[in-house]
Amino acid sequence: MDKFMAAAIDQARQGLATGGIPIGSVLVRNGEIIGQGHNQRVQGGSPIIHAEIDCLQNAGRIGHYRDTVLYSTLMPCYLCAGAVVQFGIKKVIAGESATFPGAREFMEAHGVEVIDLDLAECKQLMGDFITANPALWSEDIGEL
Amino acid sequence: MDKFMAAAIDQARQGLATGGIPIGSVLVRNGEIIGQGHNQRVQGGSPIIHAEIDCLQNAGRIGHYRDTVLYSTLMPCYLCAGAVVQFGIKKVIAGESATFPGAREFMEAHGVEVIDLDLAECKQLMGDFITANPALWSEDIGEL
Repeated sequence: MDKFMAAAIDQARQGLATGGIPIGSVLVRNGEIIGQGHNQRVQGGSPIIHAEIDCLQNAGRIGHYRDTVLYSTLMPCYLCAGAVVQFGIKKVIAGESATFPGAREFMEAHGVEVIDLDLAECKQLMGDFITANPALWSEDIGEL
Repeated sequence: MDKFMAAAIDQARQGLATGGIPIGSVLVRNGEIIGQGHNQRVQGGSPIIHAEIDCLQNAGRIGHYRDTVLYSTLMPCYLCAGAVVQFGIKKVIAGESATFPGAREFMEAHGVEVIDLDLAECKQLMGDFITANPALWSEDIGEL
């Protein structure tokens, strides 16, 4: 598997192991990971620190984003896709979009290249979590 | 002036007084402020904590957002507008959009009511800041 997606999945599993929603993300520039993170709704009591937001936060103030690639185990929602569009990230690689379609069309309409790897491991991770925690998942995507 | 926009401007001025970008935001439910914040790029070294994100973070896990109104001294960018759309906030009131057009059409396309108060105080606050700090402002909106 792509080593960067493997790192994002490792982040998702860290999130699951600490009681959280298993979504992970890494930011890559010039073949190196410059930021990584996972959803902090449960662990940080945060409504807004999705995996991609945590990742971008942990990357810090890196200046421009035009040569970065954002990996996420799940297709980014509008919040995270909004960050991608606003900051000019040109490429997003998602682990899957079967359990949640996300905002792929919105990103593509703004010129972002979006790749969906449709990975069984990512689908099982989220599918199992959503089945076991439907209310928490609905809260995370604003569908309460 | 609308007391909630006055509170958002107070947040923006707190941000300016602590060396930051002067944008403030409050979240209102049932006539009460349930969250407030300001841009944390400088003070928090954060690339992602825009005023509206800080406000939503400080409001905490409030469940659904369908009866909330988000105030911001500046028209929300795609990141913050993405949060509005994802979490189902139905109304956004901006202090101005003359210094930055933001993502008004994107929010409206998703059924959000957007009001632009076009306030001289907000325009002067951002106009003066952008003139004095053009690189910092470009960084904040991803236009480096």
